Amino acid sequence: MSAKLSPARDQLLFTPGPLTTSLSVKEAMLHDAGSWHEDFNRVVADIRERLLGIAGVSRESGWESILLQGSGTFAVEAVFQTCVPHDGKVAVMTNGAYGDRMIDMLRMARIDHTVLRRAEHEPILPADVDQLLSSEPSVTHVALVHCETTTGILNPLQEIGPVVRKHKKVLIVDAMSSFGGIPIDLEACGVDFLVSSANKCLEGVPGFAFVLCRRAILERSAGTARSLSLDLLGQLRGFEKNGQFRFTPPTHTLLAFQQALKELDLEGGIRARADRYRLNHEVLMSGTGRLGLRAFLPPLVQSNIITAFHYPDTPRFSFPGLYQGLSDRGFIIYPGKLTRVNTFRIGTIGRLFPADIEQLVHAMRLCLEEMR
Amino acid sequence: MSAKLSPARDQLLFTPGPLTTSLSVKEAMLHDAGSWHEDFNRVVADIRERLLGIAGVSRESGWESILLQGSGTFAVEAVFQTCVPHDGKVAVMTNGAYGDRMIDMLRMARIDHTVLRRAEHEPILPADVDQLLSSEPSVTHVALVHCETTTGILNPLQEIGPVVRKHKKVLIVDAMSSFGGIPIDLEACGVDFLVSSANKCLEGVPGFAFVLCRRAILERSAGTARSLSLDLLGQLRGFEKNGQFRFTPPTHTLLAFQQALKELDLEGGIRARADRYRLNHEVLMSGTGRLGLRAFLPPLVQSNIITAFHYPDTPRFSFPGLYQGLSDRGFIIYPGKLTRVNTFRIGTIGRLFPADIEQLVHAMRLCLEEMR
Repeated sequence: MSAKLSPARDQLLFTPGPLTTSLSVKEAMLHDAGSWHEDFNRVVADIRERLLGIAGVSRESGWESILLQGSGTFAVEAVFQTCVPHDGKVAVMTNGAYGDRMIDMLRMARIDHTVLRRAEHEPILPADVDQLLSSEPSVTHVALVHCETTTGILNPLQEIGPVVRKHKKVLIVDAMSSFGGIPIDLEACGVDFLVSSANKCLEGVPGFAFVLCRRAILERSAGTARSLSLDLLGQLRGFEKNGQFRFTPPTHTLLAFQQALKELDLEGGIRARADRYRLNHEVLMSGTGRLGLRAFLPPLVQSNIITAFHYPDTPRFSFPGLYQGLSDRGFIIYPGKLTRVNTFRIGTIGRLFPADIEQLVHAMRLCLEEMR
Repeated sequence: MSAKLSPARDQLLFTPGPLTTSLSVKEAMLHDAGSWHEDFNRVVADIRERLLGIAGVSRESGWESILLQGSGTFAVEAVFQTCVPHDGKVAVMTNGAYGDRMIDMLRMARIDHTVLRRAEHEPILPADVDQLLSSEPSVTHVALVHCETTTGILNPLQEIGPVVRKHKKVLIVDAMSSFGGIPIDLEACGVDFLVSSANKCLEGVPGFAFVLCRRAILERSAGTARSLSLDLLGQLRGFEKNGQFRFTPPTHTLLAFQQALKELDLEGGIRARADRYRLNHEVLMSGTGRLGLRAFLPPLVQSNIITAFHYPDTPRFSFPGLYQGLSDRGFIIYPGKLTRVNTFRIGTIGRLFPADIEQLVHAMRLCLEEMR
């Protein structure tokens, strides 16, 4: 295919983020804001307030909302670097690349840790967490990825949380790709720190991440932080001192995010968005089923966020071929991240609607036919 | 003043960044790019290449260009966290808040350090650096802020660099607010690591920073990094592996930055931009002189980047009053950052031209008259 089929428009991103956002979200970036100006401070305050509201918690009940420059990984690491005392120990639950990344963070920060590992197609089991915490009383913190983007698997946070609470450990949840797309009851799940980022289900553009946390637990960590930039308590105190980021914020990204949160509100909040993502996922599964594609995960543990598919048996199938064919038609999908199985991934979050999924499936049919 | 004087347009930012950028730079953000897509990889590669070119160095002569998510502070800290070995010691030269911030970083990362402090209105002296390095042979790295934004003072990098080199120490330069606005000969100045960010003299929007460094010196630090997110060598290896950021990049900010670098080229490169900033500063100094305002620094050490002014003696002067009056007229200036002297600051970088400075000075005249 030498001539481009669809050169003029932006491609739709069927990825776990950065993802397709609305034009109005991007247009909010057409302004230069003074990072010290009261108008901008109000944007920051509004965003922090809205995030608590979206999570269904409040300052009065002891919660705080902290924004941090960088990608989601920076914010997950900031929790560890700020909150795990020098004699602390983190139990990492992992069944994918993002759980493994937490292990890398702890190793590099020389923070003691232990690992509970499950196969990539199996969710973390509450009974296993219970057993680990019973056998390793020196553990102080438990870290869990809610939706593991490696496969799209959803770990049963609502069952694991109470186990962690029973053992009186601090629970840190990487909810990067789930927050805003899957309702989470922070109190019922016993979450102490939840980390997510601007460019996932809240449909903003990338540039910062955020942490929702119980203030009392964060404050216990005073003096522990191993990094200035990643000092979460310092960041909170900065906001409280003068309403500002301690260090230059991504002003345009924040303007876009405020607009994205307004649009979430207009859509009907998290539940309405979760409904859209579920419908997106249903259309994807029925469509790919008709194409003979097999999902990597069993339906019971599959989230509506992102889905991994086995390569089809078609002898002439090549992932670069499929990727390029779809890209030429205006659709960007995502490569796999599994080490032992050949998969590719399709995200169903972002400013995408069931009609977009139908068109993607049709384009996949054309690409697969070209390969036969 | 109850009604807003100038409510409809964006205010011009006379700040050290985030600053006023061109509309075309901001418009480059109206697209969602796939962070894994080859088109985006090409943008990243182009930016890394252009930065080396702007700095007048090349890969062939051993230099590398590494982009890092977050503000400039994140990148300065990344150099320390990645490159100072566990038995290393950093000598920090400080005459302002950004030098002091380096001390905070080192303290929090438990990295041994010593401090050479000068008053905020005095540049770091090469002879003092020589003496310190002679008396403290355990020092392995020297850290210097080129243009200290606290006051706008310019430290004599071209004289300090050779002293550091003579003592065979690694030189780390925070050139946050100078790179792109003041020509720097990296080789002649003996710089090993130079840190700057997207939203300063290169006139991009905030969201990432970058480090230009000698590859051989960075590679010596393998295994040292104390943080995954701030691991500069890991970040370089990520770019080299597949052309991508290891963790989600601020895609829109990078699209804007590529456009900003093209516009720097169109303007005539760093020398032309430095000329514009010098003219901006000249217009500012003659204008504020006519208003009877006194600069904090003597002209000899004053940069063209940002200028600190003493509060005028006018009995009814208030900084909030001046700030608000200027803001209402469409101009944002910057508060002071000095601890013992009352100052405010005016930046002369960003998409600002001498005519804008003339208008700012006129608005200041009106505001000061209102206070008399």
